[in-house]
Amino acid sequence: MEVIENLRRWATGLWEPFASQARESQKQWPPTGEVAERLRRIEDEREIEKVFRRYHHFYDAHDIDGVVNCFTDDAVQVNGRGTFIGRDSIRRSYQYLIDNQQVIFHYGTGVLVTLDPDDPDAAILTARHFDIWQPTVGKPHAAGGTYINRMRRVEGRWLIAEQRITFNFKFEVELSPRVLGSNQAPAEFPFSQVDLVDPRHLLS
Amino acid sequence: MEVIENLRRWATGLWEPFASQARESQKQWPPTGEVAERLRRIEDEREIEKVFRRYHHFYDAHDIDGVVNCFTDDAVQVNGRGTFIGRDSIRRSYQYLIDNQQVIFHYGTGVLVTLDPDDPDAAILTARHFDIWQPTVGKPHAAGGTYINRMRRVEGRWLIAEQRITFNFKFEVELSPRVLGSNQAPAEFPFSQVDLVDPRHLLS
Amino acid sequence: MEVIENLRRWATGLWEPFASQARESQKQWPPTGEVAERLRRIEDEREIEKVFRRYHHFYDAHDIDGVVNCFTDDAVQVNGRGTFIGRDSIRRSYQYLIDNQQVIFHYGTGVLVTLDPDDPDAAILTARHFDIWQPTVGKPHAAGGTYINRMRRVEGRWLIAEQRITFNFKFEVELSPRVLGSNQAPAEFPFSQVDLVDPRHLLS
Repeated sequence: MEVIENLRRWATGLWEPFASQARESQKQWPPTGEVAERLRRIEDEREIEKVFRRYHHFYDAHDIDGVVNCFTDDAVQVNGRGTFIGRDSIRRSYQYLIDNQQVIFHYGTGVLVTLDPDDPDAAILTARHFDIWQPTVGKPHAAGGTYINRMRRVEGRWLIAEQRITFNFKFEVELSPRVLGSNQAPAEFPFSQVDLVDPRHLLS
Repeated sequence: MEVIENLRRWATGLWEPFASQARESQKQWPPTGEVAERLRRIEDEREIEKVFRRYHHFYDAHDIDGVVNCFTDDAVQVNGRGTFIGRDSIRRSYQYLIDNQQVIFHYGTGVLVTLDPDDPDAAILTARHFDIWQPTVGKPHAAGGTYINRMRRVEGRWLIAEQRITFNFKFEVELSPRVLGSNQAPAEFPFSQVDLVDPRHLLS
Repeated sequence: MEVIENLRRWATGLWEPFASQARESQKQWPPTGEVAERLRRIEDEREIEKVFRRYHHFYDAHDIDGVVNCFTDDAVQVNGRGTFIGRDSIRRSYQYLIDNQQVIFHYGTGVLVTLDPDDPDAAILTARHFDIWQPTVGKPHAAGGTYINRMRRVEGRWLIAEQRITFNFKFEVELSPRVLGSNQAPAEFPFSQVDLVDPRHLLS
């Protein structure tokens, strides 16, 4: 049960890991070192932020290979349903989620990245999520919670090695009908989003 | 109808352009080149992010010149109402939107920028939006969807050359009355947001 | 009443300070100077963004020392309840807020930072907030508004010297019960968020 012990160690308490990371982040200012090293740190931090952005781009696109390739082979994910270990297990978990989504919009915010001062190949990203989604069966909802991504650099690529996702709240939303004003500005072409986007993705 | 053909080419599918950009983003890691070039790439990416932030700052401020100046002269925008071509047309479209807003809050999140590896003056920004707005007539709503900004550098400035905005959901919100607790901490001055902000912008 | 005069000067109008900052931001492009100086500007801007992230990490964690240490000793905060002057006063204000929160999720978005071109130790950060919170007494709500942080570098650290927070809307949300699907993917361990997070922080 080393996996569970590890999770208890770094993932206990909703916001405690966020506060503890924030304290570490404070210690890392001001930056020291040569220009090349300081540039590399910014590049690393930005890339870790981009992994988070790409994860949501792939997830919302239901591109399951894209999602799963954000993780290390032996990644551990703890979420609202259990603890998933390894890419195959994590893949099955996302397949279940995706199969139950007609469309989803992930709003990932409050992203803070800290590089590990003692290990050039380790870093932490924390964030919040707010999601609007229409399940394949049932009513549309808003939901949200938190992310902790413990990142590792593997063969030069930053990947999620351990992840905690919490789902803290959920509420139904009642969609309004789609109505266009009668006084709208004239367009050059009537060609609009309905000509580009699957109607199942246009909810209201 | 070259405009429409172009839109079909890069703007078809709600999330497909996001996944395809995410794959391109992955290929751009790790960064190569001299320090000066790598710094310039970060500066370009950050400036493109800032154009998106300024666009929303101007939009929420109903500063229509500010909004329109984020676009190239011949910009193309496709949205939920049609396809608008050129700054004048885009201006009329925003004028219509602004005229119907008492106040709006744009939450732009999930921003991912990729520079075009083959063209130093081209880039793509994708993002999601979630908006709370009070129309001049009617009830307050939440709404949201996606942005794709295809950016061009024109005379040194990054501008939106082509843009797809989708509105995917909308739901009414019922405002709560503004109530202050009786046990609040004492302030040095009673001077508060009501002394600084137009009452039409304070909804609840 | 110099404090109030100052607030009137930079904090009047909900979105006007945002538009005016956006215009200043436009003027700062393209970046000039040596590599080392341009790198320092990015580091400063990113650190100011991180102060905003850490502020929300500490706030959501109810780590009041962490929150208060984001401010200068003589910081001024104007919010929906009044004007608070100095760390002690600001501490009492956050203590009041925290005491009334069972759990809160701050979504800070639309962050734009501009360094003062005339003062290397001054900068402005603007942003929007959207919050989901469960008060200790009463129903869960969504709320939101804006931030303006006028930052100062004091002994090398970027701190909030003056801050305007607006609360512009609030609406109740009705939580859905927490239900897990019966067809979910099997986890390696049943160990989940309920084993890590205080039940008062898991709302639905």
